[in-house]
Amino acid sequence: MRKIILEISYLGTKYFGWQKQPNRTSIQQTIESIYKDRLKEEINLTASGRTDAGVHAIKQVAHFETSLNIKAEKFAYILNSFLPPDIRILRSFEGSQNFNARFSAKSKTYLYKMYLSDIELPIFLDRALRISETLNTKAMRKASKALIGTHDFSSFCKHRQNQDKNFVRTIYTIDINHDKIKNTLDIEISGNGFLHNMIRIIVGTLLDVGKGKYNAQDIKNILNEKKRIHGIKTLPPYALYLKDVNYPN
Amino acid sequence: MRKIILEISYLGTKYFGWQKQPNRTSIQQTIESIYKDRLKEEINLTASGRTDAGVHAIKQVAHFETSLNIKAEKFAYILNSFLPPDIRILRSFEGSQNFNARFSAKSKTYLYKMYLSDIELPIFLDRALRISETLNTKAMRKASKALIGTHDFSSFCKHRQNQDKNFVRTIYTIDINHDKIKNTLDIEISGNGFLHNMIRIIVGTLLDVGKGKYNAQDIKNILNEKKRIHGIKTLPPYALYLKDVNYPN
Repeated sequence: MRKIILEISYLGTKYFGWQKQPNRTSIQQTIESIYKDRLKEEINLTASGRTDAGVHAIKQVAHFETSLNIKAEKFAYILNSFLPPDIRILRSFEGSQNFNARFSAKSKTYLYKMYLSDIELPIFLDRALRISETLNTKAMRKASKALIGTHDFSSFCKHRQNQDKNFVRTIYTIDINHDKIKNTLDIEISGNGFLHNMIRIIVGTLLDVGKGKYNAQDIKNILNEKKRIHGIKTLPPYALYLKDVNYPN
Repeated sequence: MRKIILEISYLGTKYFGWQKQPNRTSIQQTIESIYKDRLKEEINLTASGRTDAGVHAIKQVAHFETSLNIKAEKFAYILNSFLPPDIRILRSFEGSQNFNARFSAKSKTYLYKMYLSDIELPIFLDRALRISETLNTKAMRKASKALIGTHDFSSFCKHRQNQDKNFVRTIYTIDINHDKIKNTLDIEISGNGFLHNMIRIIVGTLLDVGKGKYNAQDIKNILNEKKRIHGIKTLPPYALYLKDVNYPN
Protein backbone atom coordinates (compact mmCIF):
# COMPACT_ATOMS: atom_id res chain seq x y z
CA MET A 1 0.00 0.00 0.00
CA ARG A 2 1.30 3.45 -0.93
CA LYS A 3 0.72 6.43 1.33
CA ILE A 4 -0.73 9.49 -0.43
CA ILE A 5 -0.75 12.96 1.14
CA LEU A 6 -3.42 15.51 0.23
CA GLU A 7 -3.28 19.25 0.83
CA ILE A 8 -6.90 20.37 1.02
CA SER A 9 -8.60 23.76 1.03
CA TYR A 10 -12.25 24.22 1.94
CA LEU A 11 -14.98 26.60 2.85
CA GLY A 12 -16.61 25.05 5.90
CA THR A 13 -19.93 26.93 5.67
CA LYS A 14 -22.03 24.05 4.32
CA TYR A 15 -20.34 21.24 6.27
CA PHE A 16 -20.60 19.76 9.75
CA GLY A 17 -16.85 19.99 10.11
CA TRP A 18 -14.04 17.75 8.89
CA GLN A 19 -14.96 14.56 10.73
CA LYS A 20 -17.21 11.86 9.26
CA GLN A 21 -20.44 11.33 11.25
CA PRO A 22 -23.77 9.66 10.62
CA ASN A 23 -26.40 11.61 8.62
CA ARG A 24 -24.30 14.74 8.32
CA THR A 25 -22.25 16.08 5.45
CA SER A 26 -18.61 16.46 6.43
CA ILE A 27 -15.52 17.36 4.41
CA GLN A 28 -13.98 13.92 5.08
CA GLN A 29 -17.09 12.00 3.99
CA THR A 30 -17.47 14.16 0.85
CA ILE A 31 -13.91 13.44 -0.31
CA GLU A 32 -13.98 9.75 0.66
CA SER A 33 -17.28 9.11 -1.11
CA ILE A 34 -16.24 10.88 -4.32
CA TYR A 35 -13.00 8.86 -4.25
CA LYS A 36 -14.98 5.63 -3.84
CA ASP A 37 -17.47 6.52 -6.60
CA ARG A 38 -14.74 7.35 -9.08
CA LEU A 39 -11.90 5.00 -8.19
CA LYS A 40 -13.81 2.04 -6.73
CA GLU A 41 -11.54 1.85 -3.72
CA GLU A 42 -12.52 2.50 -0.14
CA ILE A 43 -10.15 4.86 1.69
CA ASN A 44 -9.94 6.31 5.16
CA LEU A 45 -8.61 9.86 5.35
CA THR A 46 -6.59 10.88 8.40
CA ALA A 47 -6.32 14.66 8.75
CA SER A 48 -3.89 16.74 10.81
CA GLY A 49 -6.87 17.31 13.09
CA ARG A 50 -10.60 17.97 12.99
CA THR A 51 -12.08 21.31 12.16
CA ASP A 52 -15.48 22.15 13.67
CA ALA A 53 -18.68 22.84 11.73
CA GLY A 54 -18.37 26.11 9.79
CA VAL A 55 -14.57 26.37 10.19
CA HIS A 56 -12.59 26.82 6.97
CA ALA A 57 -9.20 25.58 5.82
CA ILE A 58 -6.73 27.46 3.67
CA LYS A 59 -4.55 24.36 3.99
CA GLN A 60 -5.53 21.16 5.75
CA VAL A 61 -3.35 18.05 5.34
CA ALA A 62 -4.61 14.45 5.25
CA HIS A 63 -3.23 11.06 4.23
CA PHE A 64 -4.67 7.76 3.00
CA GLU A 65 -3.43 4.41 1.79
CA THR A 66 -4.07 3.08 -1.68
CA SER A 67 -3.33 -0.04 -3.69
CA LEU A 68 -4.18 1.70 -6.97
CA ASN A 69 -1.50 2.16 -9.59
CA ILE A 70 -2.12 5.86 -10.19
CA LYS A 71 0.54 8.59 -10.16
CA ALA A 72 0.37 10.40 -6.82
CA GLU A 73 -0.05 13.82 -8.48
CA LYS A 74 -3.08 12.52 -10.41
CA PHE A 75 -5.28 12.08 -7.31
CA ALA A 76 -5.66 15.86 -6.89
CA TYR A 77 -6.70 16.22 -10.51
CA ILE A 78 -9.21 13.35 -10.42
CA LEU A 79 -10.82 14.46 -7.14
CA ASN A 80 -11.03 18.12 -8.20
CA SER A 81 -12.98 17.10 -11.30
CA PHE A 82 -15.81 15.80 -9.13
CA LEU A 83 -15.61 17.69 -5.83
CA PRO A 84 -17.98 20.61 -5.17
CA PRO A 85 -16.29 24.03 -5.65
CA ASP A 86 -16.08 24.65 -1.89
CA ILE A 87 -13.55 21.81 -1.52
CA ARG A 88 -10.30 21.70 -3.52
CA ILE A 89 -7.26 19.42 -3.37
CA LEU A 90 -4.31 21.80 -3.70
CA ARG A 91 -1.78 19.02 -4.18
CA SER A 92 -1.38 15.23 -3.87
CA PHE A 93 1.96 13.51 -3.48
CA GLU A 94 3.46 10.30 -2.13
CA GLY A 95 4.54 10.20 1.51
CA SER A 96 6.93 7.92 3.35
CA GLN A 97 5.50 4.85 5.09
CA ASN A 98 5.93 6.37 8.56
CA PHE A 99 4.16 9.64 7.68
CA ASN A 100 0.95 10.31 9.61
CA ALA A 101 -0.96 13.55 8.91
CA ARG A 102 -2.03 13.73 12.54
CA PHE A 103 0.93 12.44 14.52
CA SER A 104 3.75 13.74 12.32
CA ALA A 105 2.45 17.34 12.43
CA LYS A 106 5.08 19.59 14.02
CA SER A 107 3.06 22.80 14.15
CA LYS A 108 -0.19 24.35 12.99
CA THR A 109 -1.25 27.89 12.22
CA TYR A 110 -4.78 29.20 12.60
CA LEU A 111 -6.16 32.54 11.45
CA TYR A 112 -9.16 34.31 12.97
CA LYS A 113 -10.57 37.02 10.68
CA MET A 114 -12.49 40.05 11.95
CA TYR A 115 -13.61 43.45 10.69
CA LEU A 116 -14.52 46.61 12.57
CA SER A 117 -17.90 48.02 11.69
CA ASP A 118 -21.05 49.40 13.31
CA ILE A 119 -23.08 47.19 11.02
CA GLU A 120 -22.82 43.65 9.64
CA LEU A 121 -21.21 43.83 6.19
CA PRO A 122 -22.54 41.30 3.64
CA ILE A 123 -19.19 40.95 1.87
CA PHE A 124 -17.81 39.34 5.07
CA LEU A 125 -20.82 37.03 5.55
CA ASP A 126 -19.71 33.57 6.82
CA ARG A 127 -16.04 34.58 6.42
CA ALA A 128 -15.18 37.06 9.20
CA LEU A 129 -16.54 38.23 12.56
CA ARG A 130 -17.81 41.78 13.02
CA ILE A 131 -16.37 43.78 15.93
CA SER A 132 -18.34 46.87 16.86
CA GLU A 133 -16.16 48.17 19.72
CA THR A 134 -12.94 50.13 19.38
CA LEU A 135 -10.13 47.81 20.46
CA ASN A 136 -6.90 48.58 22.27
CA THR A 137 -4.66 46.42 20.09
CA LYS A 138 -1.55 47.45 22.02
CA ALA A 139 -3.05 45.96 25.21
CA MET A 140 -4.05 42.86 23.24
CA ARG A 141 -0.48 42.37 21.97
CA LYS A 142 0.92 42.79 25.46
CA ALA A 143 -1.57 40.31 26.95
CA SER A 144 -0.99 37.80 24.15
CA LYS A 145 2.64 37.44 25.30
CA ALA A 146 1.40 35.75 28.49
CA LEU A 147 0.12 32.89 26.34
CA ILE A 148 3.29 32.34 24.31
CA GLY A 149 5.30 29.27 25.35
CA THR A 150 4.46 25.94 26.95
CA HIS A 151 1.47 26.03 29.31
CA ASP A 152 -1.43 23.98 30.60
CA PHE A 153 -4.27 25.49 28.54
CA SER A 154 -7.17 23.97 30.55
CA SER A 155 -8.61 27.48 30.99
CA PHE A 156 -8.70 27.99 27.24
CA CYS A 157 -10.49 24.92 25.89
CA LYS A 158 -13.84 23.20 25.81
CA HIS A 159 -13.78 20.19 28.10
CA ARG A 160 -15.19 16.93 26.85
CA GLN A 161 -15.43 13.72 28.81
CA ASN A 162 -12.53 11.29 28.44
CA GLN A 163 -10.70 13.50 26.01
CA ASP A 164 -7.66 15.74 25.96
CA LYS A 165 -6.20 14.35 29.17
CA ASN A 166 -3.03 16.28 28.46
CA PHE A 167 -3.74 20.00 28.34
CA VAL A 168 -0.14 21.13 27.86
CA ARG A 169 0.52 22.79 24.52
CA THR A 170 3.12 25.20 23.17
CA ILE A 171 2.16 28.41 21.41
CA TYR A 172 4.98 29.77 19.24
CA THR A 173 3.51 33.02 17.97
CA ILE A 174 0.41 35.21 18.19
CA ASP A 175 0.26 37.91 15.51
CA ILE A 176 -2.34 40.64 15.83
CA ASN A 177 -2.64 42.50 12.56
CA HIS A 178 -4.93 45.54 12.43
CA ASP A 179 -5.28 46.94 8.90
CA LYS A 180 -6.43 50.50 9.51
CA ILE A 181 -7.31 51.14 5.87
CA LYS A 182 -9.43 48.02 5.36
CA ASN A 183 -10.67 48.07 8.97
CA THR A 184 -9.83 44.40 9.39
CA LEU A 185 -8.25 42.58 12.31
CA ASP A 186 -6.50 39.25 11.72
CA ILE A 187 -5.19 37.19 14.61
CA GLU A 188 -2.83 34.40 13.61
CA ILE A 189 -1.75 31.79 16.15
CA SER A 190 0.93 29.11 15.66
CA GLY A 191 1.59 26.26 18.02
CA ASN A 192 2.50 22.60 18.27
CA GLY A 193 -1.18 21.68 18.63
CA PHE A 194 -4.45 23.05 19.91
CA LEU A 195 -7.17 21.82 22.27
CA HIS A 196 -10.86 21.82 21.36
CA ASN A 197 -12.09 25.41 20.72
CA MET A 198 -8.74 26.72 22.00
CA ILE A 199 -8.20 29.31 19.23
CA ARG A 200 -11.77 30.60 19.42
CA ILE A 201 -11.48 30.95 23.23
CA ILE A 202 -8.05 32.62 23.13
CA VAL A 203 -9.12 35.13 20.48
CA GLY A 204 -12.35 35.84 22.41
CA THR A 205 -10.33 36.51 25.56
CA LEU A 206 -7.89 38.76 23.70
CA LEU A 207 -10.87 40.73 22.35
CA ASP A 208 -12.02 41.19 25.96
CA VAL A 209 -8.55 42.60 26.69
CA GLY A 210 -8.97 44.95 23.71
CA LYS A 211 -12.30 46.10 25.17
CA GLY A 212 -10.69 46.76 28.57
CA LYS A 213 -12.36 43.89 30.44
CA TYR A 214 -9.04 42.15 31.21
CA ASN A 215 -5.37 43.15 31.26
CA ALA A 216 -2.17 41.15 30.75
CA GLN A 217 -2.03 40.11 34.42
CA ASP A 218 -5.65 38.82 34.25
CA ILE A 219 -4.65 36.60 31.33
CA LYS A 220 -1.81 35.14 33.40
CA ASN A 221 -4.25 34.55 36.28
CA ILE A 222 -6.81 32.89 33.99
CA LEU A 223 -4.08 30.63 32.59
CA ASN A 224 -3.00 29.71 36.15
CA GLU A 225 -6.56 28.77 37.16
CA LYS A 226 -6.25 25.76 34.84
CA LYS A 227 -9.99 25.47 34.49
CA ARG A 228 -12.67 27.05 32.32
CA ILE A 229 -13.76 30.31 33.95
CA HIS A 230 -17.24 31.78 33.77
CA GLY A 231 -17.36 34.65 31.27
CA ILE A 232 -14.66 33.35 28.97
CA LYS A 233 -16.35 33.27 25.57
CA THR A 234 -15.99 31.00 22.55
CA LEU A 235 -16.15 32.98 19.30
CA PRO A 236 -18.20 31.67 16.35
CA PRO A 237 -16.59 29.20 13.91
CA TYR A 238 -17.24 30.97 10.58
CA ALA A 239 -14.29 33.38 11.01
CA LEU A 240 -11.74 30.64 11.80
CA TYR A 241 -9.31 29.28 9.19
CA LEU A 242 -6.81 26.45 9.52
CA LYS A 243 -4.03 28.19 7.62
CA ASP A 244 -1.13 25.78 7.59
CA VAL A 245 0.21 22.52 8.97
CA ASN A 246 3.93 21.91 9.18
CA TYR A 247 5.81 18.60 9.14
CA PRO A 248 9.50 17.77 9.62
CA ASN A 249 11.31 17.64 6.28
CA MET B 1 -43.56 63.30 0.56
CA ARG B 2 -40.08 63.15 2.09
CA LYS B 3 -37.16 61.77 0.16
CA ILE B 4 -35.12 59.11 1.98
CA ILE B 5 -31.67 58.01 0.83
CA LEU B 6 -30.38 54.50 1.56
CA GLU B 7 -26.78 53.34 1.44
CA ILE B 8 -26.96 49.62 0.76
CA SER B 9 -24.41 46.80 0.85
CA TYR B 10 -25.10 43.37 -0.61
CA LEU B 11 -23.67 40.08 -1.68
CA GLY B 12 -25.14 39.50 -5.15
CA THR B 13 -24.59 35.72 -5.26
CA LYS B 14 -28.20 34.67 -4.65
CA TYR B 15 -29.89 37.50 -6.58
CA PHE B 16 -30.74 38.20 -10.19
CA GLY B 17 -29.19 41.63 -9.89
CA TRP B 18 -30.49 44.90 -8.47
CA GLN B 19 -33.45 45.42 -10.80
CA LYS B 20 -36.96 44.15 -10.06
CA GLN B 21 -38.22 41.62 -12.63
CA PRO B 22 -41.02 39.04 -12.79
CA ASN B 23 -40.46 35.69 -11.04
CA ARG B 24 -36.89 36.45 -10.04
CA THR B 25 -35.44 37.51 -6.70
CA SER B 26 -33.68 40.84 -6.99
CA ILE B 27 -32.14 43.14 -4.39
CA GLN B 28 -34.66 45.90 -5.18
CA GLN B 29 -37.68 43.60 -4.87
CA THR B 30 -36.36 42.09 -1.60
CA ILE B 31 -35.99 45.51 0.06
CA GLU B 32 -39.26 46.90 -1.34
CA SER B 33 -41.29 43.88 -0.25
CA ILE B 34 -39.84 43.83 3.29
CA TYR B 35 -40.58 47.55 3.52
CA LYS B 36 -44.17 46.97 2.42
CA ASP B 37 -44.66 44.00 4.78
CA ARG B 38 -43.40 45.93 7.78
CA LEU B 39 -44.42 49.52 7.12
CA LYS B 40 -47.58 49.00 5.02
CA GLU B 41 -46.45 51.52 2.43
CA GLU B 42 -45.57 50.82 -1.17
CA ILE B 43 -42.27 52.37 -2.26
CA ASN B 44 -40.28 52.42 -5.44
CA LEU B 45 -36.50 52.37 -4.99
CA THR B 46 -34.36 54.23 -7.52
CA ALA B 47 -30.72 53.13 -7.37
CA SER B 48 -27.62 54.87 -8.73
CA GLY B 49 -27.71 52.17 -11.41
CA ARG B 50 -28.40 48.48 -11.87
CA THR B 51 -25.98 45.78 -10.92
CA ASP B 52 -26.11 42.52 -12.88
CA ALA B 53 -26.90 39.08 -11.45
CA GLY B 54 -24.11 37.94 -9.13
CA VAL B 55 -22.50 41.39 -8.83
CA HIS B 56 -21.94 42.69 -5.29
CA ALA B 57 -22.12 46.15 -3.73
CA ILE B 58 -19.91 47.48 -0.98
CA LYS B 59 -21.97 50.66 -1.29
CA GLN B 60 -24.97 51.14 -3.54
CA VAL B 61 -27.15 54.24 -3.14
CA ALA B 62 -30.92 54.39 -3.68
CA HIS B 63 -33.74 56.77 -2.83
CA PHE B 64 -37.49 56.50 -2.26
CA GLU B 65 -40.37 58.74 -1.25
CA THR B 66 -42.40 58.23 1.88
CA SER B 67 -45.35 59.81 3.62
CA LEU B 68 -44.59 57.99 6.88
CA ASN B 69 -43.71 59.99 9.94
CA ILE B 70 -40.59 58.00 10.87
CA LYS B 71 -37.15 59.47 11.61
CA ALA B 72 -34.97 59.06 8.51
CA GLU B 73 -32.25 57.21 10.47
CA LYS B 74 -34.81 54.66 11.68
CA PHE B 75 -35.46 53.16 8.23
CA ALA B 76 -32.02 51.47 8.20
CA TYR B 77 -32.67 49.97 11.60
CA ILE B 78 -36.18 48.71 10.74
CA LEU B 79 -35.15 47.20 7.39
CA ASN B 80 -32.03 45.53 8.81
CA SER B 81 -34.15 43.74 11.40
CA PHE B 82 -35.96 41.86 8.64
CA LEU B 83 -33.59 41.76 5.66
CA PRO B 84 -31.59 38.57 4.95
CA PRO B 85 -27.94 38.83 6.11
CA ASP B 86 -26.65 39.22 2.53
CA ILE B 87 -28.35 42.66 2.27
CA ARG B 88 -27.67 45.45 4.76
CA ILE B 89 -28.70 49.11 4.89
CA LEU B 90 -25.54 50.92 5.98
CA ARG B 91 -27.33 54.21 6.56
CA SER B 92 -30.63 56.00 5.88
CA PHE B 93 -31.02 59.77 5.88
CA GLU B 94 -33.22 62.47 4.43
CA GLY B 95 -32.32 63.93 1.04
CA SER B 96 -33.28 67.19 -0.60
CA GLN B 97 -36.33 67.20 -2.89
CA ASN B 98 -34.18 67.46 -6.03
CA PHE B 99 -31.93 64.51 -5.12
CA ASN B 100 -32.08 61.54 -7.47
CA ALA B 101 -29.86 58.51 -6.74
CA ARG B 102 -29.46 57.89 -10.45
CA PHE B 103 -29.29 61.31 -12.03
CA SER B 104 -27.49 63.20 -9.26
CA ALA B 105 -24.60 60.68 -9.16
CA LYS B 106 -21.36 62.46 -10.01
CA SER B 107 -19.07 59.45 -10.11
CA LYS B 108 -18.95 55.75 -9.35
CA THR B 109 -16.16 53.40 -8.37
CA TYR B 110 -16.11 49.70 -9.18
CA LEU B 111 -13.70 47.07 -7.91
CA TYR B 112 -12.82 43.83 -9.71
CA LYS B 113 -11.18 41.27 -7.40
CA MET B 114 -8.83 38.54 -8.60
CA TYR B 115 -6.28 36.11 -7.16
CA LEU B 116 -3.36 34.34 -8.78
CA SER B 117 -3.38 30.59 -8.34
CA ASP B 118 -2.92 27.36 -10.30
CA ILE B 119 -6.04 26.02 -8.65
CA GLU B 120 -9.46 27.41 -7.68
CA LEU B 121 -9.33 28.41 -4.00
CA PRO B 122 -12.57 27.81 -2.03
CA ILE B 123 -12.03 30.84 0.23
CA PHE B 124 -12.50 33.07 -2.85
CA LEU B 125 -15.58 31.20 -4.11
CA ASP B 126 -18.17 33.63 -5.59
CA ARG B 127 -16.06 36.61 -4.45
CA ALA B 128 -12.98 36.83 -6.72
CA LEU B 129 -11.80 35.54 -10.11
CA ARG B 130 -8.88 33.12 -10.36
CA ILE B 131 -6.06 34.07 -12.73
CA SER B 132 -3.71 31.23 -13.61
CA GLU B 133 -1.29 33.09 -15.87
CA THR B 134 1.58 35.33 -14.77
CA LEU B 135 0.59 38.88 -15.62
CA ASN B 136 2.72 41.80 -16.75
CA THR B 137 1.11 44.40 -14.47
CA LYS B 138 3.46 47.12 -15.71
CA ALA B 139 2.12 46.67 -19.26
CA MET B 140 -1.43 46.64 -17.86
CA ARG B 141 -0.87 49.97 -16.07
CA LYS B 142 0.59 51.51 -19.21
CA ALA B 143 -2.31 50.30 -21.38
CA SER B 144 -4.90 51.43 -18.82
CA LYS B 145 -3.79 55.05 -19.37
CA ALA B 146 -5.23 54.89 -22.91
CA LEU B 147 -8.69 54.50 -21.36
CA ILE B 148 -8.46 57.40 -18.90
CA GLY B 149 -10.41 60.50 -19.94
CA THR B 150 -13.53 61.12 -22.03
CA HIS B 151 -14.07 58.61 -24.83
CA ASP B 152 -16.74 56.82 -26.82
CA PHE B 153 -16.65 53.40 -25.13
CA SER B 154 -18.71 51.52 -27.76
CA SER B 155 -15.90 48.95 -28.04
CA PHE B 156 -16.09 48.24 -24.31
CA CYS B 157 -19.76 47.53 -23.66
CA LYS B 158 -22.52 45.08 -24.36
CA HIS B 159 -24.88 46.49 -26.98
CA ARG B 160 -28.61 46.21 -26.37
CA GLN B 161 -31.35 47.38 -28.66
CA ASN B 162 -32.67 50.90 -28.08
CA GLN B 163 -30.39 51.51 -25.14
CA ASP B 164 -27.29 53.48 -24.32
CA LYS B 165 -27.51 55.71 -27.36
CA ASN B 166 -24.76 57.87 -25.91
CA PHE B 167 -21.58 55.86 -25.46
CA VAL B 168 -19.39 58.71 -24.26
CA ARG B 169 -18.20 58.34 -20.69
CA THR B 170 -15.30 59.71 -18.64
CA ILE B 171 -12.95 57.44 -16.71
CA TYR B 172 -11.10 59.29 -13.95
CA THR B 173 -8.80 56.60 -12.57
CA ILE B 174 -7.82 52.97 -13.05
CA ASP B 175 -5.82 51.53 -10.16
CA ILE B 176 -4.15 48.16 -10.58
CA ASN B 177 -3.08 46.82 -7.22
CA HIS B 178 -1.10 43.58 -7.12
CA ASP B 179 -0.51 42.32 -3.57
CA LYS B 180 2.50 40.04 -3.96
CA ILE B 181 2.15 38.56 -0.47
CA LYS B 182 -1.53 37.68 -0.69
CA ASN B 183 -1.31 36.95 -4.43
CA THR B 184 -4.33 39.11 -5.14
CA LEU B 185 -4.98 41.57 -7.93
CA ASP B 186 -7.55 44.34 -7.45
CA ILE B 187 -8.53 46.64 -10.28
CA GLU B 188 -10.46 49.73 -9.24
CA ILE B 189 -12.07 51.99 -11.84
CA SER B 190 -13.70 55.37 -11.22
CA GLY B 191 -15.71 57.31 -13.74
CA ASN B 192 -18.76 59.50 -14.26
CA GLY B 193 -20.80 56.49 -15.35
CA PHE B 194 -20.42 53.11 -17.01
CA LEU B 195 -22.11 51.30 -19.91
CA HIS B 196 -23.51 47.79 -19.66
CA ASN B 197 -20.74 45.28 -18.83
CA MET B 198 -18.15 48.05 -19.34
CA ILE B 199 -16.05 47.28 -16.23
CA ARG B 200 -16.04 43.53 -16.91
CA ILE B 201 -14.99 44.12 -20.52
CA ILE B 202 -12.28 46.67 -19.65
CA VAL B 203 -10.78 44.45 -16.95
CA GLY B 204 -10.89 41.44 -19.32
CA THR B 205 -9.05 43.43 -21.98
CA LEU B 206 -6.45 44.64 -19.47
CA LEU B 207 -5.89 41.01 -18.43
CA ASP B 208 -5.23 40.21 -22.09
CA VAL B 209 -2.62 42.99 -22.05
CA GLY B 210 -1.09 41.38 -18.94
CA LYS B 211 -0.92 38.06 -20.80
CA GLY B 212 0.83 39.71 -23.77
CA LYS B 213 -2.08 39.44 -26.23
CA TYR B 214 -2.43 43.22 -26.60
CA ASN B 215 -0.24 46.26 -25.92
CA ALA B 216 -1.10 49.89 -25.10
CA GLN B 217 -1.39 50.81 -28.80
CA ASP B 218 -3.84 47.94 -29.39
CA ILE B 219 -6.05 49.33 -26.61
CA LYS B 220 -6.08 52.72 -28.34
CA ASN B 221 -6.98 51.02 -31.63
CA ILE B 222 -9.77 48.99 -30.03
CA LEU B 223 -11.16 52.18 -28.47
CA ASN B 224 -11.03 53.93 -31.87
CA GLU B 225 -12.95 51.11 -33.57
CA LYS B 226 -16.02 52.21 -31.60
CA LYS B 227 -17.64 48.81 -31.94
CA ARG B 228 -17.47 45.52 -30.09
CA ILE B 229 -14.54 43.52 -31.50
CA HIS B 230 -14.39 39.73 -31.75
CA GLY B 231 -12.20 38.28 -29.01
CA ILE B 232 -12.89 40.97 -26.43
CA LYS B 233 -14.12 39.05 -23.41
CA THR B 234 -16.59 39.85 -20.64
CA LEU B 235 -15.37 38.59 -17.26
CA PRO B 236 -17.79 36.83 -14.87
CA PRO B 237 -19.94 38.94 -12.50
CA TYR B 238 -19.09 37.31 -9.15
CA ALA B 239 -15.77 39.20 -8.77
CA LEU B 240 -17.30 42.65 -9.43
CA TYR B 241 -18.17 45.08 -6.61
CA LEU B 242 -19.88 48.46 -6.84
CA LYS B 243 -17.63 50.17 -4.31
CA ASP B 244 -18.87 53.72 -4.06
CA VAL B 245 -21.19 56.32 -5.57
CA ASN B 246 -20.43 60.01 -5.19
CA TYR B 247 -22.84 62.93 -5.19
CA PRO B 248 -22.24 66.69 -5.13
CA ASN B 249 -22.28 68.02 -1.58
